[in-house]
Order: sequence, then C-alpha cells, then structure tokens
Amino acid sequence: MGKKNFVCTGCHKKYPLDRMFPRCDECFEPLEVEITPGEKFEKKILSPHDDICDQDILDRYASFYSLSQVNHQLSLKEGFTPLIKANILSSILDLDTLYFKNETVNPTWSFKDRGTFVCLQHAINLGYRRIATVSSGNMAVSVAAYGARANLKTFVLVSSDMLLEKILPILIYNPILIKVKGDYGKLYYKSLEIGREMGIYFLNSDVPFRMEGSKSIAFEICEQLNYDVPEYVVIPTSSGGNARGIIKGFLEFYQQGLISRLPKMICVQLEGCAPIYQAWIHKYEKISPVSDPKAIDHAIANPYPPSGNELLRKLRLHDGMVTTVSDNEALDSQCLLAKEGIFSQPAAAVSLAAIKKLKIKGILNKKDRCIAVITGSGLKYSGILKKQFFDMETCLLENIKEKISSILEK
Amino acid sequence: MGKKNFVCTGCHKKYPLDRMFPRCDECFEPLEVEITPGEKFEKKILSPHDDICDQDILDRYASFYSLSQVNHQLSLKEGFTPLIKANILSSILDLDTLYFKNETVNPTWSFKDRGTFVCLQHAINLGYRRIATVSSGNMAVSVAAYGARANLKTFVLVSSDMLLEKILPILIYNPILIKVKGDYGKLYYKSLEIGREMGIYFLNSDVPFRMEGSKSIAFEICEQLNYDVPEYVVIPTSSGGNARGIIKGFLEFYQQGLISRLPKMICVQLEGCAPIYQAWIHKYEKISPVSDPKAIDHAIANPYPPSGNELLRKLRLHDGMVTTVSDNEALDSQCLLAKEGIFSQPAAAVSLAAIKKLKIKGILNKKDRCIAVITGSGLKYSGILKKQFFDMETCLLENIKEKISSILEK
Repeated sequence: MGKKNFVCTGCHKKYPLDRMFPRCDECFEPLEVEITPGEKFEKKILSPHDDICDQDILDRYASFYSLSQVNHQLSLKEGFTPLIKANILSSILDLDTLYFKNETVNPTWSFKDRGTFVCLQHAINLGYRRIATVSSGNMAVSVAAYGARANLKTFVLVSSDMLLEKILPILIYNPILIKVKGDYGKLYYKSLEIGREMGIYFLNSDVPFRMEGSKSIAFEICEQLNYDVPEYVVIPTSSGGNARGIIKGFLEFYQQGLISRLPKMICVQLEGCAPIYQAWIHKYEKISPVSDPKAIDHAIANPYPPSGNELLRKLRLHDGMVTTVSDNEALDSQCLLAKEGIFSQPAAAVSLAAIKKLKIKGILNKKDRCIAVITGSGLKYSGILKKQFFDMETCLLENIKEKISSILEK
Repeated sequence: MGKKNFVCTGCHKKYPLDRMFPRCDECFEPLEVEITPGEKFEKKILSPHDDICDQDILDRYASFYSLSQVNHQLSLKEGFTPLIKANILSSILDLDTLYFKNETVNPTWSFKDRGTFVCLQHAINLGYRRIATVSSGNMAVSVAAYGARANLKTFVLVSSDMLLEKILPILIYNPILIKVKGDYGKLYYKSLEIGREMGIYFLNSDVPFRMEGSKSIAFEICEQLNYDVPEYVVIPTSSGGNARGIIKGFLEFYQQGLISRLPKMICVQLEGCAPIYQAWIHKYEKISPVSDPKAIDHAIANPYPPSGNELLRKLRLHDGMVTTVSDNEALDSQCLLAKEGIFSQPAAAVSLAAIKKLKIKGILNKKDRCIAVITGSGLKYSGILKKQFFDMETCLLENIKEKISSILEK
C-alpha cells in the first residue's frame, strides 16, 4: 500500500499517521487519512462466511485501510449489515426502489462499532493503553464495549443530565464513567486537551480512523448492489463524522474504478438542532453553534458538530445536500419504518422521514433508488415511546375468544 | 427433496405437512418435521455476501427445509450471526476455547427471528392471513415485526403484569396487542383452541417450523468451525423449543455425513423455574409445572415448557444434560460476558454461568471446546441493571482533569 498521511480537511497540511491528535495545529479543522491509490481491490467476492470466525471489515477491505497492524481478535464482527429492501413502504411512498442499510444489528446495535473497531486499532498501534470518549449515547456504548474486550482502561464522559435508561447499557461494560456537569459542548474541546496531556486516546466522533470505519458502509452498499450505484444515500447527521466517512468510502471506490459515479448524499438533521443545515442554506463556510438545541433524540442533537465544516465542503464538492425534519416527522417515520420490521431510534428514522418529505416535494423521483441509513436500534431509547402509547385495557382469560372475535368482526 | 411429514415426538404418529395444529391428536406431544434424507448439501461454501440482498437461511440451507414455497422478501436477514471467540474469559475460566454464538445481533435482537421467519412461511403457504403468539418477550417482538413486514393481521397476547419496558418494543410494530389477566400458563392451551377455531396461526414456541428455524444455529456453528464439531453447546432453556431445534440441526448434518459426531448439548435453566431440570435429575419421563416460578428474567421462566418432554427425550438419546444456575449467577455472568463486549439479557447469560459452574465442578475440562448460545440482547431488559448500579457522583467540567488524574493515580 502507498505511504499515506493525515491531511487537514481545511488547509491541506499533512501530518504523519502516527499522530493521536485529530485536529490540525494550524486551522484546527479535522484531519483525514488522505486518499491515495492503494492496492487494487478485487471485485471478486470474498465471503465473510468463508472463514466467518476470522473475517471483519479490516480483512475484507484491507487495501483501503492504512493501519500498521490489525488485531482481528478485538473484532465483534461489526459491519456486514443487511441491506433490506422495502416491502410495504415503496408503494406507500411511491418509490420504485427503497433500501434500508440496517445498522441496528451491529454488536452494540449502532453504526458506531465500525469506527470504534478501526480507531481502537490505531490507538493500540500508537501504544495507548487508555482510551476515552465524550458521548451521550451510541458512541459511549460502543467504546465501552470494545474497550472492555481490548482490556483497556476506558473512560466515558457523559453529561450529568443523561437518562438512566441510556447510562445502564454503558455501565454494563464496566468503564470508568464520569458524569460531567457544565457546558457539554465545551467538554469536547476539553477532551482534546486531556487526551494530549494525560496520554488518553479519545475515540471521539471526528477522529480520522473513526471516519475510516464509516467508509465500510459505502463499500458494503456498493457490493450489495453489485456495484450498481443508487441515486441517493440518506444519512442521519449529528456530529457529521459518519456522513464524512460514507462519502469518503464512495470516493475511494470511485477512484479505484470500482463504481462509475457517486450517489448523491443527503444529510438529515432535526429542525430543533440543525447547525449544518443552517450553514448549508445560508451558504456559510463555517457552522455556528446552536445555542438552545431542542430535539427529541440526543443521538442527533450535537449543537456544534466537530465535522460540520468539512461535511459542508464535501457535500458542496460532490453535489450533496442537507435537509431537516421535525421531531414529529421523525417519530412518525419511526413507526413507518416498523412496518418493515425494523425498530430504529427516532434519530435513525430521520433518513426515512427525509425521503418521504423530499418525495412529496418532488425532489426525489419515483425511479430514484434510495438508501436510508438506519443508524441505531430503537431499544436504545424506547422510553420515548411511552408518550405515544396510551394505557391499554386488560382482557380476562375467560373472555379472550370473545375479545378476538369482536376485533375480527370490526 | 424427499416427501416429508410431521411426526409426533411422543408416539411417532405421522401427519401431513399442511397441518397447522402443532400437537398430536393422540398423545398431545409436539410434532416435528421428520428427518429424511434430503438433497445433498454442498460443503463448498456459498457466501451470504455473494448475493447479500437475496440470501437468507432458507436459501443457504434450502435442502434441509420442507416448505412448498418461500417468500424471501419477508426476510430481515435473520441468522448468520457471528461466533465470537472469547478474548478474556478463556483465561479467567481456564478454558482453551470458548465461543459465543451471538444471537443478539438478529433483526429483533434475539434468536426468535430465525423461527419466526421460517414458520411465517408455513403459515402463509397454508393460506393464513392472521397470525398470533403468546409471549412475554422476545417471541412477541419478533412475531410483531415479521407480521408487520408480511402485512398480516398479527395478534400478540401478553400477560397483564408485563412491564411497560417490555411492551413498548412490541407496540412499535403495531400489532393487535391484548393484555390477558388470568393463569398465563393456561393461555398457551387456550391459544391452541383459538387458533383452530378462529383461523389464526399461532407462531408459538413449539410450532414445528419454529424449531426448523432454530436448526440453522447448529448449521452455522458447523460451518463456522469448518465442520470440526465442538465438545459442548450450551443453551439457555425456557420453553425448550430452541434447544430441540439446535439438536435437530446437528442431527441432520450428522445424518448427511457433514459432521462426524454430535456435540454434547447442555440445557440451562434458572433455579427458580427449572421444570426440565427437575424431571431430568429425577429421571421422570414428563415434566411437571412449576407452581410458583421465581426467576429474575421472564425470558427463561416458562413454568410448564411445551417442549419439555420431547427435550428430555432428545437429551437422553443423545447424551446431553440439564443444569441450573441461580439468579445471581446469571447476573454475574451478564457482567462477565460484557467483558467480551457482549451485552446479553440475564436469561441469555445463563449459558456462560453454566460453563463457569461446570468447569469449576470439573465436569468440563480445559481442552473442551465450548459454545455458549447467547440468545438475546441486554437492551431488552436493561431495567434489571438499576439494582446493580448505585448513583454515581457528578463532576464539574472545570474539575474533570483533576478527577481523571486522581483515578489514574489510584
């Protein structure tokens, strides 16, 4: 493989790959592993089942990753998630072809596992024995799980107002969990300081090798559609890292001649916390923090997304777009998606909500093949459903037949 | 494929495969699809990735299934779950080789999806447009999801004392959910009546084609270990259906000459509700209902398992065994398993708890290769964790460095 560097996404300054700090020293924009021609990837299909105990995304797509070493034993078989074709919703939405890239079946039930697995390798290769993350949800769970498996000292910094429902699935992996009171947005910047000073590798959302993990979503979509690129890929967008990674993945397959064009990427935010969308419609170069975020699901409510500026650049360069949906549209789409048998977080259902909205507006056409990335499981945040379901009546065992009869007669 | 029948597991009476009622008219024991030589299964590896959008367990293992038709579009890509090799626990437990068959990454995060997908096909082939289940947990979620995807009228009968936490992930799929007050054990028998009289196909735990779904766990284990059969497969056991199916799967591969012997099967129940274990140690032919079940997790607390008698017969015939663990051992093992990055239900962790216990007792040896089947996700029942985690202190943002320093110095 070619010798690669990190490159600053803002000023293009290069840095060696053995750097932990994820930001540029000059302009403070996030770094990225540069795209340079690597070994040719064989279109011939390798099977994850061929040697199902050993293969993971870093085996299958090895030529697209610049890691000096890989400890495959740390894998929990993240990725290789199914692309589920809509049965019912394609007719409801009047779309010929709609797919769901179902990330809810990852080892900790969100897309975060791909990036965690990959940047954990980088951390270990650099000699770190302490990792950490600033997260209020999926990333915290994922880092805690992989940190446990890798037997590393793992710090998870959460906001002090976090719901117990969300803390428990982190605590089970027994990390050092610290509830932090104060401006949670500032904690991200504090974490960069702590990381540098205290020898702790923070696996945050904008770490270059986390983005490298997200690339595999694009690679898999290409393979699953037999390299026949869809028109649109729609991505729930909070910190912006996942979308950056997916775009980079398509670019890398494109530059290797594996696909003939790029899909259009649509990033979706919630109206109540849409800093990337605001910058997009106002044609700003930089995002501004949202001072008073009001969104139904924390997982998609980063008020000052670390990857925001770079995502704007990528979307402008490659003909993408940003849109928003309301909390209610997200919740409605959560129920809509369940008609296909997939129970997502509200945050994850925004991709479907956007497709519905853009189809009604005529921006999407019936023949456009769309892929909604479904980022995380609804079990992560089922408490939100309480509001939707009223108390049901109870039926006595001896009356059950009558009850069912009366329902069938309706 | 050879012409197959249902055969009664008790008296061996045969019935045609186009029968809905899952029990024998004579002795009331559960039916099973008989094992007859089918088409030869090719050991050559087919890849689920070869055509990842189309393949499911009924493609890959088609020659082992007797379905007149299969609608693959109803699949949510259940199965093909990873076999995760223990990193940390093999040394803690002093076992050379320990694997986890991680069923928590199924479409509704439990093993139930395999059986639901398969028996749904049978229901549809028989012309049913109404399905139902009696379940307080994983099966209810699974049937509701697949019922939605197949656009069938779907009834879910739950106990009136069911926790809201468990009901919400069922309701999201919008089934007709009925809370039933009365003896929940009797509801199963009532459901058989209702099914027959009202034209509703009940996808309960002992339906023969649900067992057929569970077979695929055995098939995959064989493939994943390159047909080198492990010494032990350890299965959390409640209604007994999953264990029956897994044993049948190994038998079918054995009878086709694909594996040279059967693994020993260890079924695990919780001490507070162990009807199969009680019959096992007392060498009874039939199980007796547990009158006052006390178990920490409903998912493994069936007081009168429909498949109990047949499971006893299968285990005796094939040199298996039954054991129990306590609630606390289950909870401890849930935490132990999380060291490997896997968050299971307490019910699912009993397989690991049993391995630990049997290793200490000297029944398992260091060189025995063991597979613990991890049946369902911990997210399904995270409320139970509240008891384990005390309230944590909160740290102010400005003190975070000092806090971390003090932890690192310890």
